[in-house]
Amino acid sequence: MIIDCHGHYTTAPRELQAYRQRQIDSLKDPSASCQAESLEISDDQIRESLESAQLKFQRERGTDLTIFSPRAVGMGHHIGNATTSLQWSRICNNLIHRVCSLYPENFVGACQLPQSPGVPPENCIPELERCVSELGFVGCNLNPDPSGGHWSDPPLTDRWWYPLYEKMVELNVPAMVHVSGSCNPNFHATGAHYLNADTTAFMQFLASDLFKDIPQLKFVIPHGGGAVPYHWGRYRGIAQDLKRTSLQELLLHNVYFDTCVYHQPGMEVLLKVIPIDNILFASEMIGAVKSIDPETGHYFDDTKRYIDSVSWLRDEDRCKIYEGNARKVYSHLR
Amino acid sequence: MIIDCHGHYTTAPRELQAYRQRQIDSLKDPSASCQAESLEISDDQIRESLESAQLKFQRERGTDLTIFSPRAVGMGHHIGNATTSLQWSRICNNLIHRVCSLYPENFVGACQLPQSPGVPPENCIPELERCVSELGFVGCNLNPDPSGGHWSDPPLTDRWWYPLYEKMVELNVPAMVHVSGSCNPNFHATGAHYLNADTTAFMQFLASDLFKDIPQLKFVIPHGGGAVPYHWGRYRGIAQDLKRTSLQELLLHNVYFDTCVYHQPGMEVLLKVIPIDNILFASEMIGAVKSIDPETGHYFDDTKRYIDSVSWLRDEDRCKIYEGNARKVYSHLR
Repeated sequence: MIIDCHGHYTTAPRELQAYRQRQIDSLKDPSASCQAESLEISDDQIRESLESAQLKFQRERGTDLTIFSPRAVGMGHHIGNATTSLQWSRICNNLIHRVCSLYPENFVGACQLPQSPGVPPENCIPELERCVSELGFVGCNLNPDPSGGHWSDPPLTDRWWYPLYEKMVELNVPAMVHVSGSCNPNFHATGAHYLNADTTAFMQFLASDLFKDIPQLKFVIPHGGGAVPYHWGRYRGIAQDLKRTSLQELLLHNVYFDTCVYHQPGMEVLLKVIPIDNILFASEMIGAVKSIDPETGHYFDDTKRYIDSVSWLRDEDRCKIYEGNARKVYSHLR
Repeated sequence: MIIDCHGHYTTAPRELQAYRQRQIDSLKDPSASCQAESLEISDDQIRESLESAQLKFQRERGTDLTIFSPRAVGMGHHIGNATTSLQWSRICNNLIHRVCSLYPENFVGACQLPQSPGVPPENCIPELERCVSELGFVGCNLNPDPSGGHWSDPPLTDRWWYPLYEKMVELNVPAMVHVSGSCNPNFHATGAHYLNADTTAFMQFLASDLFKDIPQLKFVIPHGGGAVPYHWGRYRGIAQDLKRTSLQELLLHNVYFDTCVYHQPGMEVLLKVIPIDNILFASEMIGAVKSIDPETGHYFDDTKRYIDSVSWLRDEDRCKIYEGNARKVYSHLR
């Protein structure tokens, strides 16, 4: 079985985005309506949005189950306030739940959290509990920068985040560290902000005692870990210069990397330097890169092809990457 | 000959930092003295600071000439205002000039620019001109985020920067894109902010027409290009999805990567995916990582060893990386 731990509902029916626009408009004009009831999406629309997209790719590429969450760029935690964010998160999460109910063999849910800049993360606990306990979700996406590119909240290793972490541990779910869109013109979302956030989070973990404080906490760093595997020597050296213990001891019981790296040499360095036990298969499809690589004739995000092409990878390692590690990190996966 | 295009004067005599502290103190207390004349450093002190450090490593590792600039973390463009920054930049650049005059075979200068958040970059032109025309410097370090981690100035591709770029072209010098320290607690300087800035700048270039506007402009992206080579497939795909031309056409006539990658697999992916003509040898010594890798018994930042170990690299490619490309990019190198 092949589990893809990183998929977003990027193909949701356009009614969803139209609703979001009404919600955003209503922030300026309270007379504009944005009742949740005004969003109507039929089961057939959901089926249609997936059959020719994620489901088609699952079949073609031979993957089985996707851990599916709302569109990351769409989370937009920087828009409005905590109420805006809660309303929008509930709608997005409910839609993921419908997807998972329609296709229980193909999708399992991970939730968007109702974060908002400057608002304590513990504010997200009720929605996390609802998604895990009532909707059967197996994880969440945690935005390390709810300001959308201004990085105005405390680092992920600050006690500011601990109440949410303690709830994650209690519910036995990991978080994928995943920013949303950027409202800072310096940062292209998928080409800079995403990778920067991955790199930033790793370095925050490296310099902190977070995992001493909460040893059961688990994070997946997406997009192949940002810059981290490429600079693994730099991080080993920085940890040593900072008189920390080894990266293995410091954080590899708690931090995992996905395989969203879209070319063969990049994938090889990931598989070479990061311990196999810390790598989870993922494609992020349909996401950051949607087209076919003219150099290979295959989709850039068909990451399974790169892994399958690594001749030196042992079968048991491939099994861990494709399934075993995901089951270990996402304990609720049956 | 082996040219290291990325070295900072991290070992400057402590009097320099003491002066800087007086300057910072005087921002709050104008009665505190911070006259430039109050900084006294002898030639012997300079020799001592280099003989047991950068010069020792040059000899041991077999490199010849370092393009040498003030300590990057020390630039601190976010401290004080444009006057503070100009005064501090002149002092740091003058010290680099003394280094280069004492050891003309070993060092050639690249300058710190007197940037300040919110202040138009053209304000840096007089100091750039002074350093190139009077002090014989061959390049400059350009900070894409003078705010130190708040990213409050426009992207490098905004016309805000163009007057400085035009002067760079007129003077025939490239810039290394290099941030300074971070005053945002989210970003560790050498472990996150540096790499993020490299990645961010590349993506800004990719999405812009900067090099159509100023075809002679040249940038070196340090630290192996941040996350870029590792995610080369992602960038090729994003460029394609954005209906841009190839990366080669878009920016590889203008953008170069250094080799500050501190482990063998990372170096190999850099040399594999980035065209050889776009790679410049560098070590960043003595910089981000100062210690010896227990896995190899050699310094992490002894990057020449990794390059020498790549068996498939042709001799002519090695020559380009070690010397030819640097002479092409830094036209003033005799």
